[in-house]
Amino acid sequence: MDKAVRHFQEELELLLARLLEMGGLAEERVRDAVQGLVTRDPALIEKVKYGDEPVNRLHIEIDEWCFRLLALHQPMATDLRAIVSAVKINTDLERVGDLAVNIAEAAQRYASHPPVKKLIDIPHMGNVAQAMLRDALDAFVRRDTRLAQQVLNEDDTLDGLKTQVFRELLTYMLQDPSTVEPALDLILISRHLERIGDHATNIAEDVIFMVSAQDVRHHTAGGG
Amino acid sequence: MDKAVRHFQEELELLLARLLEMGGLAEERVRDAVQGLVTRDPALIEKVKYGDEPVNRLHIEIDEWCFRLLALHQPMATDLRAIVSAVKINTDLERVGDLAVNIAEAAQRYASHPPVKKLIDIPHMGNVAQAMLRDALDAFVRRDTRLAQQVLNEDDTLDGLKTQVFRELLTYMLQDPSTVEPALDLILISRHLERIGDHATNIAEDVIFMVSAQDVRHHTAGGG
Repeated sequence: MDKAVRHFQEELELLLARLLEMGGLAEERVRDAVQGLVTRDPALIEKVKYGDEPVNRLHIEIDEWCFRLLALHQPMATDLRAIVSAVKINTDLERVGDLAVNIAEAAQRYASHPPVKKLIDIPHMGNVAQAMLRDALDAFVRRDTRLAQQVLNEDDTLDGLKTQVFRELLTYMLQDPSTVEPALDLILISRHLERIGDHATNIAEDVIFMVSAQDVRHHTAGGG
Repeated sequence: MDKAVRHFQEELELLLARLLEMGGLAEERVRDAVQGLVTRDPALIEKVKYGDEPVNRLHIEIDEWCFRLLALHQPMATDLRAIVSAVKINTDLERVGDLAVNIAEAAQRYASHPPVKKLIDIPHMGNVAQAMLRDALDAFVRRDTRLAQQVLNEDDTLDGLKTQVFRELLTYMLQDPSTVEPALDLILISRHLERIGDHATNIAEDVIFMVSAQDVRHHTAGGG
């Protein structure tokens, strides 16, 4: 292996480590946002609401790094796909950070009303979405298409929970108008969590595309 | 200009034309979805709901084309940025197509209830989102950062309309429980339209990044 190639592989590994760090941060923000909602903890909610800076800084840093690697090393085939996938995944993770802010904003409004109900399905959705995100990133780094496929399958779980949350809250809203506002925020939060799952799905699709150069997108209804 | 370079520039122009075609398709689907909502036209709604195939096909085609151009020509600097931007924009447009499906699904549910109110702000949001999308793509092809900046400014218009729609519908829901279900669908539709504006904003940010190699992202609150 010549020196330039080794140097590129080292750079690529550092880049992937940084992307994992960003994934960890994004995931932590989702966890904190849902935790803030459940415990009605104003400090935790504020932390998420105003703590977007580190993720945004990493987003720019990783994006520029990808371009530098592309421009300097002009990688071929697999490495090229890995870096363009990193650009996309970086965008997905930044959006996850934004969605954590959206959840925190809704959680703040929700906390200004009496609780509509004991929250069970929404924290469950939060756990599923976080696990999907973690698995998708693991699959990316390990080039593990089987794990990526598992992430795609999990999306149905999230979709089912979202529908269940919606139906249940609708019942509350129809019976008692005082629940309309807080229930609306819970519905929005469940949609934000569903979208976090969508981003994990995007990452998983990129992994399968990158490894097998086979395009799994649009082969199932609804996805993407 | 040598032959390989000219060939690359020709390929790049064809690629951009195809991306514009995809943008036109995505925009048309948004227009049809909102039109279907306003006119309660089941045929138009069905057309959008089940008509995602052409956008999805274009998405895959353009993505593969970008990789081919990167791998074969190993472009530098501006051309490299243009192609990686095309990969990102392609993803944004595919999501816009998905959101048109989401709007159509909500429009279908909405049409199964008596109308809550005369729809004015939502069609307005639809027009703004479509114009943002069109302008963002024009800005990309013409490398026009001023037009891209205009798109970023328009995002506030959309955000204001979304808040207005939400407040008004909340009033209906609180006064009359029979409006809860259809009003919820209108709220969801306004969020889908807002997200279409977000995708236009992403494209505009890519244009400014590509042309000026200056990163405008995360300099304003909330965006991204």
